[in-house]
Amino acid sequence: MDLNADLGEGFGHWRLGDDEALLEVITSANVACGFHAGDPGIMRRVCAAAAARGVAVGAQVGYRDLAGFGRRRIEYAFADLRDEVIYQIGALDAFCRLAGTAVRYVKPHGALYNTAAVDETQAAAVVAAVLDHDRTLPLLCLPGSVLAQLATGAGLRTVGEGFADRGYLPNGTLVPRGAPNALVADPDEVAERAVRMAVERTVRAVDGTDLPCPVESICLHGDTPGAVDLARRVRAALRRTDVTLTPFTAPPT
Amino acid sequence: MDLNADLGEGFGHWRLGDDEALLEVITSANVACGFHAGDPGIMRRVCAAAAARGVAVGAQVGYRDLAGFGRRRIEYAFADLRDEVIYQIGALDAFCRLAGTAVRYVKPHGALYNTAAVDETQAAAVVAAVLDHDRTLPLLCLPGSVLAQLATGAGLRTVGEGFADRGYLPNGTLVPRGAPNALVADPDEVAERAVRMAVERTVRAVDGTDLPCPVESICLHGDTPGAVDLARRVRAALRRTDVTLTPFTAPPT
Amino acid sequence: MDLNADLGEGFGHWRLGDDEALLEVITSANVACGFHAGDPGIMRRVCAAAAARGVAVGAQVGYRDLAGFGRRRIEYAFADLRDEVIYQIGALDAFCRLAGTAVRYVKPHGALYNTAAVDETQAAAVVAAVLDHDRTLPLLCLPGSVLAQLATGAGLRTVGEGFADRGYLPNGTLVPRGAPNALVADPDEVAERAVRMAVERTVRAVDGTDLPCPVESICLHGDTPGAVDLARRVRAALRRTDVTLTPFTAPPT
Amino acid sequence: MDLNADLGEGFGHWRLGDDEALLEVITSANVACGFHAGDPGIMRRVCAAAAARGVAVGAQVGYRDLAGFGRRRIEYAFADLRDEVIYQIGALDAFCRLAGTAVRYVKPHGALYNTAAVDETQAAAVVAAVLDHDRTLPLLCLPGSVLAQLATGAGLRTVGEGFADRGYLPNGTLVPRGAPNALVADPDEVAERAVRMAVERTVRAVDGTDLPCPVESICLHGDTPGAVDLARRVRAALRRTDVTLTPFTAPPT
Repeated sequence: MDLNADLGEGFGHWRLGDDEALLEVITSANVACGFHAGDPGIMRRVCAAAAARGVAVGAQVGYRDLAGFGRRRIEYAFADLRDEVIYQIGALDAFCRLAGTAVRYVKPHGALYNTAAVDETQAAAVVAAVLDHDRTLPLLCLPGSVLAQLATGAGLRTVGEGFADRGYLPNGTLVPRGAPNALVADPDEVAERAVRMAVERTVRAVDGTDLPCPVESICLHGDTPGAVDLARRVRAALRRTDVTLTPFTAPPT
Repeated sequence: MDLNADLGEGFGHWRLGDDEALLEVITSANVACGFHAGDPGIMRRVCAAAAARGVAVGAQVGYRDLAGFGRRRIEYAFADLRDEVIYQIGALDAFCRLAGTAVRYVKPHGALYNTAAVDETQAAAVVAAVLDHDRTLPLLCLPGSVLAQLATGAGLRTVGEGFADRGYLPNGTLVPRGAPNALVADPDEVAERAVRMAVERTVRAVDGTDLPCPVESICLHGDTPGAVDLARRVRAALRRTDVTLTPFTAPPT
Repeated sequence: MDLNADLGEGFGHWRLGDDEALLEVITSANVACGFHAGDPGIMRRVCAAAAARGVAVGAQVGYRDLAGFGRRRIEYAFADLRDEVIYQIGALDAFCRLAGTAVRYVKPHGALYNTAAVDETQAAAVVAAVLDHDRTLPLLCLPGSVLAQLATGAGLRTVGEGFADRGYLPNGTLVPRGAPNALVADPDEVAERAVRMAVERTVRAVDGTDLPCPVESICLHGDTPGAVDLARRVRAALRRTDVTLTPFTAPPT
Repeated sequence: MDLNADLGEGFGHWRLGDDEALLEVITSANVACGFHAGDPGIMRRVCAAAAARGVAVGAQVGYRDLAGFGRRRIEYAFADLRDEVIYQIGALDAFCRLAGTAVRYVKPHGALYNTAAVDETQAAAVVAAVLDHDRTLPLLCLPGSVLAQLATGAGLRTVGEGFADRGYLPNGTLVPRGAPNALVADPDEVAERAVRMAVERTVRAVDGTDLPCPVESICLHGDTPGAVDLARRVRAALRRTDVTLTPFTAPPT
């Protein structure tokens, strides 16, 4: 099983999250590429630190929206979004190569993640960007999403991720933020859900039914109070169950 | 001899210069990378068009200053500037590779060009960026500048460029803009100066003396009225003199 | 009758449209405020030029999206959009006051215009901004739009505008761009439609029926080839019909 | 005596400093205006919170440089800088008026503060902006600086500020950051220096001599660890000495 988290989400003088601590927990780092967060100096440092620890680096591509942190939907034209994604992957790859590695996957961020999960135009733009740039790169995304379907159809590898701290509806989608049971608050329960995702590939939905959960990675959050502690707890629980934690991608050759 | 010009300097809805026309004239295109001008869609189109014509693409790296078009000096810290240059080269390279080529050289833009010509910190940051990213990339720059000296000292290839439409002081530097004789207005004289640069590697200074002008490229401008016509005239004059026009860089292997 | 057009839509080194020419034609200038276009220097110059000619200045408020020229929908939170609109009005007002006048109305730009015409959250945010800033400012908007309804309900004055060069559906809304008959191409027909809007307050729909067209202003475009000529022709036709051309707002006291 | 500090220096999702805590300590808030930090939502909240506590709001105007937090010098043209300062004051004033108050002074931020202290062009641009916008606004600045001299010469009121936690050279200027004794580390000593500034209008230089220190405000910092505690300690020390703490500006009428 792989553990992924968003890293490098500061900008200039502003800091966010505890990248150093998370790098001790995760196996794949979604590194912001400067459009919704991140800057060249941060990207360089995070890529170097990740490479030094054997953590895989993925391009956390987002909307061009620093003021909104990439969290508000923007109605991009297909070509504009495709080219902005290519630009971001290319920029991050320069820092990965400097650190002796390469961008090993792509994960959309924030509103792009949510929109590409349901919107054909934006999903197609992300898929086209990966096809254009390097069709061997896997896409880390929501299992069953429009993005996952289009990517699979285009011959890309998709890697499904699960959210141990989020509630699931019986149809396998996440309980929307703001709705009751959207978040799993109890740390022990989060850790236990992660273990079930890793060992049984199942997750318990809010109605108590057990759903298949075909994920190769579990997403951890890093920018909320207690997030790093929770991430550590999840990792520890997985290790106690003898789950092997390793990036879902092979190292670059 | 090589002919270079700045391309891709629009942004979003805004256009600047006539890229299509210039691509018929030049052999090397300095493509803006999105920090002072340029955006991913423009970069993609210009790289594709340049590749289709056998025009070499260089990274026209600039300050992060869309509002100032990269034309006002910013006092960057060494590491910040270095990393912003790497970011820009990496982003452009993604579009070059998509077009079947690669970034083949680096040329600083505007105030970065002028500052790196005299300022050790900024020159060293540009040199460090190229060393970090790909030490086989040549730097297109002002002969004798601090940037040229540091780059040569670091083992980088430098390519000197001349300005057929600018006045030269007897010490080989350009007459500052705004001073008398800063610009050569007569198109025939500009074309003739270009021919002398190409054939004799000399340029006549404002005091009438002939100076050595060790350049491998001549810089043409594209964003002023009449600029494209002037560029065409220079090209025609060079062709009449049987000067071979070809990029100063070998195609990527 | 009032004639309005978008002005000041350059940014930094980039220019757009012919502000000087349009100022001779229009009676109300929608001046961009720096978020989707415009910068402080442009704002100062346009406000001064408009004031010198007795042209009323309105705040052409838009999304924070220079790369998209404010033309792609962004899903703002209510408070964020409200406060960005206030910010833009305040900034423009500083240049108006320096020119001896004041912001005299507000008109949303591009995707904000279109979105606020149908979306309650964004319409409410624009209305709240005007209520917060100065409830005596009229809103220039599409008659019958959600924005117009909410503004009227909140006690704001709304000023309807018509588009002489756009096709109208029988229900009074515009034919969507890209659809057949979206644009009226013939300049004489555009001028004639403007005259009917001004004299009869009617417009002929694409099915040949005449619709009521309760507008106090006609919107002219300035950034397409031939746009300024068309604007002049509309003005001339209105003047020939003895239509008085005057801003819809009283001068500031 | 007045106590001032920088507030509202977050941007979008990013936070910086503890505005709420500082508002309990200071009498004048230098509020960032969106160019180097700050956004409309933050500006609205800080203006409202300051007004509610009787804290005066000043426009903390800075370079257009979010990535550099306004801390790196940019070589602006005079008119560009002047107009950007006007824009920022106007935008902030909209939020002040919404809070029932008004911008009551102007203080340059970061590299603009340092540059305007020694550079005539930039100092003149700041002065011209205040003259253009509202010549009754005082400028909060370094006593004896070029900015202070030009402002006084132009008929503006200047308010000198002191830095209780910075070392002073015998000539009355600050010890440059990075040099020995640039910072006064001992909190008790900082508090004592503040008291001497307030009571005696003197400061002890690094060579032990006592210098005149003609200041009406003491600048407190808020964005470093322990800064808020230090600010509270300074305030407490001044109150123990019966120094009246009050804004240096009269409330708006």
